[in-house]
Amino acid sequence: MLKVSILTIGDEILIGQIINTNAAWISQKCLQTGATVTEHRVVGDNENSIIVAIDELFKNSDALLITGGLGPTSDDLTKPTLTKYFNDTLIFDNNVLEWVKGFFAKRGIKEISERNKNLAYVPSKCKPLKNDLGTAPGLLFNEQGRIIVAMPGVPKEMKFIMNTYVLPLLKDKIINQNLNVHSFKLIQTCGIPESILADKLADIENQLNGLNLAYLPSFKGVRLRLEAKNLSIEEAEQKINEVSKLIYSKIGEYIYGEGDISLSETIGKMLSVKKQTVAVAESCTGGLLGGEFTKIPGSSNYFIGGVIAYSNEVKTEILGVKQQTLENFGAVSEQTAVEMAENVRKIFNSTFGLSITGIAGPTGGTPSKPVGTVWIGISTPDRTFAKHFQFAGDRDIIRERSVAEALTMLYFNIKGFDK
Amino acid sequence: MLKVSILTIGDEILIGQIINTNAAWISQKCLQTGATVTEHRVVGDNENSIIVAIDELFKNSDALLITGGLGPTSDDLTKPTLTKYFNDTLIFDNNVLEWVKGFFAKRGIKEISERNKNLAYVPSKCKPLKNDLGTAPGLLFNEQGRIIVAMPGVPKEMKFIMNTYVLPLLKDKIINQNLNVHSFKLIQTCGIPESILADKLADIENQLNGLNLAYLPSFKGVRLRLEAKNLSIEEAEQKINEVSKLIYSKIGEYIYGEGDISLSETIGKMLSVKKQTVAVAESCTGGLLGGEFTKIPGSSNYFIGGVIAYSNEVKTEILGVKQQTLENFGAVSEQTAVEMAENVRKIFNSTFGLSITGIAGPTGGTPSKPVGTVWIGISTPDRTFAKHFQFAGDRDIIRERSVAEALTMLYFNIKGFDK
Repeated sequence: MLKVSILTIGDEILIGQIINTNAAWISQKCLQTGATVTEHRVVGDNENSIIVAIDELFKNSDALLITGGLGPTSDDLTKPTLTKYFNDTLIFDNNVLEWVKGFFAKRGIKEISERNKNLAYVPSKCKPLKNDLGTAPGLLFNEQGRIIVAMPGVPKEMKFIMNTYVLPLLKDKIINQNLNVHSFKLIQTCGIPESILADKLADIENQLNGLNLAYLPSFKGVRLRLEAKNLSIEEAEQKINEVSKLIYSKIGEYIYGEGDISLSETIGKMLSVKKQTVAVAESCTGGLLGGEFTKIPGSSNYFIGGVIAYSNEVKTEILGVKQQTLENFGAVSEQTAVEMAENVRKIFNSTFGLSITGIAGPTGGTPSKPVGTVWIGISTPDRTFAKHFQFAGDRDIIRERSVAEALTMLYFNIKGFDK
Repeated sequence: MLKVSILTIGDEILIGQIINTNAAWISQKCLQTGATVTEHRVVGDNENSIIVAIDELFKNSDALLITGGLGPTSDDLTKPTLTKYFNDTLIFDNNVLEWVKGFFAKRGIKEISERNKNLAYVPSKCKPLKNDLGTAPGLLFNEQGRIIVAMPGVPKEMKFIMNTYVLPLLKDKIINQNLNVHSFKLIQTCGIPESILADKLADIENQLNGLNLAYLPSFKGVRLRLEAKNLSIEEAEQKINEVSKLIYSKIGEYIYGEGDISLSETIGKMLSVKKQTVAVAESCTGGLLGGEFTKIPGSSNYFIGGVIAYSNEVKTEILGVKQQTLENFGAVSEQTAVEMAENVRKIFNSTFGLSITGIAGPTGGTPSKPVGTVWIGISTPDRTFAKHFQFAGDRDIIRERSVAEALTMLYFNIKGFDK
């Protein structure tokens, strides 16, 4: 296997100001490429800490991927420290100067500052990697087949350099050296709790053929990670495909996609194909459901809009919920959810209407309707109904789960399942 | 100073399935307590990696804080590995057994499994820390004044143990040993770009009195971090207060709060006090602005609701934007933004109306209205107007920045500033 370690350099992470999302992203991509990440480390903008970290990590890895500390200011120590680590000297690279000039020229800046000219000084032993999305180039060092790559900490620049140079390089190494890989497939499910999913899949636990099957529950549904460890690329792919088929045969109707796809994306594709539309009426989620639909590029093809009916007046006056309904059953009730879904579908003239009304807390709960009580309604061309949910968790979680369950109800109803 | 290092244990982080938010949270809290975090490290569920990491980190820190790997299953290696590291043995602790029993009893479970009974075996040299929110206790080791604390990886359980035991302990150490601290204050600004902020604060660069002033730009505004390094607690507090006053004297009108507060929270407090209300009309943000308002508990006091006007039909039929306006100027225009803001204020009978209409991309741009063109409108009891923005970035970023600028416009108008 190809062992990768990730070193993040920057005080802003050690003080907790920035969450280290770079390390998570790099890890995912390495795993998808077949490499195995063995360690993450974060140190501050301090030469001694960086040297120690590079030394300890590079000893134990085939590739050390470094992010951060590559800019043009004095607290950017990655380049001088790597130069020192490799007993190297900085040389002026005219190609890099042209890259930096080109970057600024595109933004209408013809003269570049002395500080930015310094970006063209690179260690003589490294290969600079052109950074199309920023000024600091990546730096690639090769030592007896093992590599160190330094990348900027800005996520989009790091991702560009990873995708353009680093991942293809790792892939080549794995293929050329015929290395075994860790490989996995992510299967996305919705509308089924982890325990019932596990019951339905209990039969195939003996047919996993050496693979590992992990259940990853989240508010948005349970993801299944089917993992092959230390196999050749072909063997891993074959085994994963075989077991994957078994999984589909058992729980196919709950699977909405594979890989990184979201439920709102899947729904968007289905609605586009069927030329159907949706509108929303949101109370406790305050617009988050609409926000989730419109996250998807092209959602204007199927998402018409909605009403954020946070106050009772909006529910009656804009959405036409009957005053009587609110008085008899309350704003958080089956009847209100039904009227909200039905009316928003009619007013917006959409194929489907979705509604959410609930108590997100922390206050507003009562003994009969405690915090976390949520009614979600759906109106289709055939029927309108609402479901009751009792969510645990804080305000954010209750709102997120409400959005996820509303999407799930819509998904099953587009599919024509009776759920 | 008191040096803290953070070790996170778990394969799920190395494969990028989970982002290491625990380390960021712990770092923030340590800094607020006066301790200095010198390193983050993540290793997998593997005894050898854990031993090496503990050994290397504990050598260089006064406190090593470990999260993860503390549960009752076989891949939870933190407890046996720490036992091995300290040449210790596991003993059965009846107190811990009572804690675990109590935890399940509260959830109506009277008999606990053998597996959960094993949680009561703890290393003889450690002090178990009661975990009110989960079953696995924290483990505190004390070695000649330096400490190792192992905590569960579940964020709410880790936070409980940090807040209840670890942070008070670190604070005591700092005070008792009269240690110098790193200390900081976060000042939140909105409506002013980093470069102009820096110009306005240029004068005080010479009056920082040894403090460090960092500019932290984000889509939501520029945060200022005023940092004191290696001073006594009193000295740090005094200097920070002095410089803070200077900053307020220069840019006070752009400061909406201190610490972790969000702009929507500040706005909520202002609207509540003034008994004013707001309603929204959102096109490209699709509900995100409403979602941001309603994130705040108690927002029903001032947030009435809104219309997600994603299609043109909704803009005309529900919001009453004139057909003529859309035809003459387009959906993304000053005139449309103005009508949306004014009409939503009237329809919802609120003090303020906010509107957003723009092109979030990646498609839909034209030469005269490229992707990132956004018009944001505001209607107050006195006037209605809209501002033009041209945002760079992807769809998510354009939407987030639109929400942030809409909040900023509302903030200034509640304040009565002419912006």
